[in-house]
Formats: sequence, C-alpha cells, structure tokens
Amino acid sequence: MRNWLLPEYIEDILPADALRIEQLRRRLLDLYHVHGYQLVMPPMLEYMQSLMTGTGHDMELQTFQVVDQLSGRLMGLRADITPQVARIDAHLLNREGVTRLCYAGSVLHTVPSSYTGTREPLQIGAELYGHTGLESDIEIQRLMLQSLSLAGVKDIHLDLGHVAIFRSLVVRGGVSEELESELFKALQSKDIPTIRELSASLETETQKALLLLPELYGGLEVLAKASKCLPAYPEITQAIADLNAIAQQLQGVVDPCFDLAELRGYHYHSGVVFAAYSKGWANAIALGGRYDEVGKSFGRARPATGFSMDLRQILSLMLPPPVPAGILAPHLQDDVLQSTIDALRSKGEIVVVDLPGHESSQSELNCDRALKWVNNGWVVEQI
Amino acid sequence: MRNWLLPEYIEDILPADALRIEQLRRRLLDLYHVHGYQLVMPPMLEYMQSLMTGTGHDMELQTFQVVDQLSGRLMGLRADITPQVARIDAHLLNREGVTRLCYAGSVLHTVPSSYTGTREPLQIGAELYGHTGLESDIEIQRLMLQSLSLAGVKDIHLDLGHVAIFRSLVVRGGVSEELESELFKALQSKDIPTIRELSASLETETQKALLLLPELYGGLEVLAKASKCLPAYPEITQAIADLNAIAQQLQGVVDPCFDLAELRGYHYHSGVVFAAYSKGWANAIALGGRYDEVGKSFGRARPATGFSMDLRQILSLMLPPPVPAGILAPHLQDDVLQSTIDALRSKGEIVVVDLPGHESSQSELNCDRALKWVNNGWVVEQI
Repeated sequence: MRNWLLPEYIEDILPADALRIEQLRRRLLDLYHVHGYQLVMPPMLEYMQSLMTGTGHDMELQTFQVVDQLSGRLMGLRADITPQVARIDAHLLNREGVTRLCYAGSVLHTVPSSYTGTREPLQIGAELYGHTGLESDIEIQRLMLQSLSLAGVKDIHLDLGHVAIFRSLVVRGGVSEELESELFKALQSKDIPTIRELSASLETETQKALLLLPELYGGLEVLAKASKCLPAYPEITQAIADLNAIAQQLQGVVDPCFDLAELRGYHYHSGVVFAAYSKGWANAIALGGRYDEVGKSFGRARPATGFSMDLRQILSLMLPPPVPAGILAPHLQDDVLQSTIDALRSKGEIVVVDLPGHESSQSELNCDRALKWVNNGWVVEQI
Repeated sequence: MRNWLLPEYIEDILPADALRIEQLRRRLLDLYHVHGYQLVMPPMLEYMQSLMTGTGHDMELQTFQVVDQLSGRLMGLRADITPQVARIDAHLLNREGVTRLCYAGSVLHTVPSSYTGTREPLQIGAELYGHTGLESDIEIQRLMLQSLSLAGVKDIHLDLGHVAIFRSLVVRGGVSEELESELFKALQSKDIPTIRELSASLETETQKALLLLPELYGGLEVLAKASKCLPAYPEITQAIADLNAIAQQLQGVVDPCFDLAELRGYHYHSGVVFAAYSKGWANAIALGGRYDEVGKSFGRARPATGFSMDLRQILSLMLPPPVPAGILAPHLQDDVLQSTIDALRSKGEIVVVDLPGHESSQSELNCDRALKWVNNGWVVEQI
C-alpha cells in the first residue's frame, strides 16, 4: 500500500483550485456580510444526539461516529452545517427577532451522495431565523441566485416545491408512518406504478392526488392544475398560494419551475423547498427551504429558511481563471532590495525569493518577472 | 440531557469572534500569498497509515479513528496538517526545486493538549520544501514573527532549539530506543534527578552532556557554553553554528532565547526547532521547525521547514475591535430603494432589511443608521 494514496471520494485541493475556492469563499461570505448575515463557525464534532436533532435517519447513516473518550458518549462528524446553525440560533444567540447567519466549512459523509460525488463537501450557506412570512423565503432565494451568478454560473434554473402538500395528503389520508416512508421514496423517483400499488388501500381522493403529484412539474400552469385537481385542504391551498406569490416576486430574476413531488429534505423541511440547477448539469448545485420545526427540537421553536451549496461542486462549473504569476527576487541581504520587496508585496504582488542553489528549477516558481539591479536601482523586468 | 450541549473542549465560534477569526485568516493567507506560498486544502480524513507517516506515537493517540465502509480500512481525522502538506509536496506536486505551501483549517484531537485547551484547533501555517540551507529556516521564522505582529500580538519572544544535539548524544552514546524515549520525557520536563538516574549506565561523557542540556537555556552565552562543554561531535558543532547564524540573521528583528533541551516534535523534527511566546502567556503561541525526514516516508526525501499556529489561541491574545454596525432598510418593493441598498452594499456597508413585524426587536440587528425617505430621496440617517 502506498502511504500517500487517499481514500475513495476524498481529495486534496491543490494550489490552482485552492486559490479559486478561497477567492469564491471570500466573495460569497462578503456578499452575506453586506446583507447582514453574521458568520458563525460551529464545530466539526458534536454529540450524535445534537447533530441528529430534527433530522432524519438518512443523516444518521451519512454521519461518521466516534466515541468521546472524555464522556464515553457517541459523537458524530457533522454531515450538514444547517442543524448546527439552528442550534446556535435557538440557544446561543437567543434573540427574539430576525437573525441572519452564514457559514462555510467542511462536512463529512460516510458515503458520497450522488449529488456531490465527494465525501467531503465544502458547504457554504446562509440561514434566516425568526420570520414566518414569504419575505424571508424570497430574500434567501434571491441571495442563493446572487451567489451563483457571483460565482459565474450560467443558465441558472430554479425548481420550487412545497413539502406541506404531500404532508397534508398523508395526515388527512390517515397514512401510517411506514407507508408514508415508502410513498416518499416512490415519489422521489416519480415511480407511478409503485405509488399506485402503495396507495391502493387509501381513500380514492388521496390516491388520486398522490398519483397526480409526479405530473405536477412545469411552469405556472402546474399551480393552476394543482388548484383545480388537488383536494382543497387549507394547507394545500396555502402552499399553492405561496408558490404563486414567490413566482410573482421573482419575476425578472428567474422563471421558476414547479415540482410538487420534490420533497428533498422532507424530514426536516416544513414549507417551500427549492433547488438551483445549471444547464448541462444533472444534479442540483444549490439547495434550500423552510425548516420551522428544527429549532423546536432544541427547545425553542423558530421559523427558519436557508440555502447551502458545495464550493467544490461550484468550482467544477467555473471557468479556470489564469493563476497569478509572481516576481522572482534574488536572495541577498540588502536593505534596499528588502524594502522594494516589501513595497511590492504590500500592493498584493507575489514576490518569491530565489533561495540559493535552485537556479535550474526557477521555472517551477511560476514567476513571469524578476527584480534586477539596473542603473543603481532595483527594477522589475519581464523574464 | 440537553440536545444543544457540546462535548467538553469543543466550542462554537459566535458572530463577533467568527468575524475576527475570518479577518485574521484572510490577512495571514494574503501575507503568505505575497511571499509565494501557495494555498493547499488537504482533506479532513485520510487513511491512518498516511496520517501517521513520519509522525510519532503521540499523534496516534491524539487522532480520532473511523472505519471506512467503502474499503474496510481505518481512517483518521487529521490531528495536524503539516504531514498532509509534506505528502502533497512529495507526491502530488512533484517539483524539483523550492516549493512554498500554506494552509488553514480545523484539526481534531481526542483530548485537548495543554497548549491549546481545545480539541479543535484552527491550524494555520506555512511550509517550505526543497531547501536545506538556513536561508529557509530564517525565511520561515521571519514569516512566523510577521504573522504574529500582523495579528497584533505584543511582546513576542522566540525560543530556538536543535533536535540534532539530543539525537547525536543518543546515537553516539548507544542509547536504546526505550531509554531514549524515557530520557526524552525527562528532558521535556527538565527533571534532572530522573535524567541522572536514567543515564547512570551510560558513558560519563554522555551522562554529563544530558545533565547539562536542561541548563543550556538563555541568550548567546548558552551557545558559547554548549561549544565548550558538550562533546565536539560534528552534528553538535554544526547545530551550534546553525543557531549562532540564525541569531545573527534575526538581529534587529528579535533576540532569540536558546533552549537546548527543547525537543518539541522530536519524532518528526530533524533540525532547528522554534517556538514563539507572548508575555504573560505560559504556552507557546506558534511552533515550527525543520523536518527533513517526513517526505522520505512518502517515498521522496525532501528538506522541509515550517511553522503553524492556532487561530483560536491567537484570537484570545487580540484586543476585541468594535463589531461593525449596519444600516437598517425598510422592507419595500421599490426599485430606487433597492438600488440605493445595492450601492451601499457594494461599498461594503452592511444593509439589513427589516422584515415586516419585527419592530420591537430592531435593536438586535446591530444597526446604528437607517435608510429614510427624505425630500424625495433615500438617505442614511443616524438612529
């Protein structure tokens, strides 16, 4: 075995990509900062019990676990930062009004999700707590779209769903928890024959509605059809009205696509859910939604909505910009040279000192200029 | 059990501190960037075998381990980034000449080290590969000192040691591996009676030298004394000459203190080692040294020197700067208002939209100004 091989789906980020990720990370955090989103840094490691609060069983399988030798209790390596930020909002900040938080950091998954293809996504995102109205959903969606265009992602496409529709059908249709979980899976894969079979024992109205959901995919006409064909339960009527209102508010920014069978994060989301796609990419590149129930599990119910994305994945969508080249400086103890170097560096120039004895590998230093002594002064010359 | 309690020595970083850490992180990485140090981002998780390469047994006890369900092999959560960067230099970049790399990220420890008091240090550092001469040790030491003064740390004090002195005594004195390890521990705590007892069976010259090491602590006079009193083995003579040369080169920057019993990182360091302290703090605030042997374990021997520090610890040394206050904007669908907000944000101002219904908790939003409609225009007014 070679000591330097990495596990599958685990990768180093080497200089050219690391620089681009760092620049993107800064620009995104700066964007959130000027919108009033305050940065928080939750830990990599928490008790499993805290990490799993308000999340589903899927998350448990995705989470690496270790024993805390100080307490003997199980700890987990975070597989998602959102529940951690909800915990911070609920307990540590303890504010009454609107709280806006953002974050950026590694998360770890036991197996790669098809969505990212890595076991260590670099998750970045923003969360808004304390506001129930659609204004916060729209603020978060706009911020997500702005993040993607700032990253230079082209042809962005927004999918909107609403988990309250399926949840209402399940609750009012008296569906058992076990059946709910199987229906949920079948809906995710839009597997109509299985939905038909699973819902055979339910009331006709519920079955009809469940079978319709996978077809409710498209533009505003989908909402009209949903209004007409789905049962007029108040939660469903409200959900359709919310989706209509969001489409109206995003006019001119993006024309969303509605997908009423989209239930991503169903176990933790409670209202509008959304996902951004880019032309030519099968997987979502940013995800989010409302999750009003998560704070409650930390003992303090707070409305919440947010989005996140993976910087590694976004990087793969970006065109590589040129790597900045530096200025080669000789290794000399010379005060004038040193102050010339300091001045160049303070302007952001990369100045690399050529330590003695490496003349033959100068080309590896990625310098296109050099400091030369010309006419009694140090000047920068092209190499 | 409360769901929101964190494990011992694991902490969230909340907004005010997170912002300061982020700013410091950027300034330090920018400093390394303009010196030609390229950013790399190694993974949080690797096979234990890779992580432990070239490091000692202490590191193994410090490392959380998990089973890789894809391969069945043991993986570890990194407890130090330096060996990962050495692996990248040795195998991924594969350059012949000088390579300068830097990094910033979380590491995890099973138990807190006394040095940091946390189980999740935020390690930041720089490493220089491919150069054997003292020029690289000095470049790295200067960069470490510059990092600390950039962070605003006052009264910086530099301790220098050289692991080749103890190693030479051990090798030439025919000390067994077991005894070496016990002598090492006794030297770390400067426990002279134990050193005397452990070295009783060794030759008089070796015992005398080992007993002298803990007393070789102080200014340049220590080097003179070491030259006179330690055996004149070539490695020892060279080590003393190196320390003298470094002191000369750092003249005007800092007056280093020599500590010839200082063996921090002995299992992985091979030459000059150094640590920075700040007045009033018992623990080192930045550490580094030469570790020429680590690359070899990855199949490619490369000279190497570097330093690292913990951003959480540095933060505790800094004076808290004021948290920037924002501008409160009303929630209105108004194009003129929106473009006013966009313009303020593009200048770096924090503009927080006051979502409807939260008037009573405005004070939580940390705004000292507000956008008001005055004489047919939006203006920023003090609150």
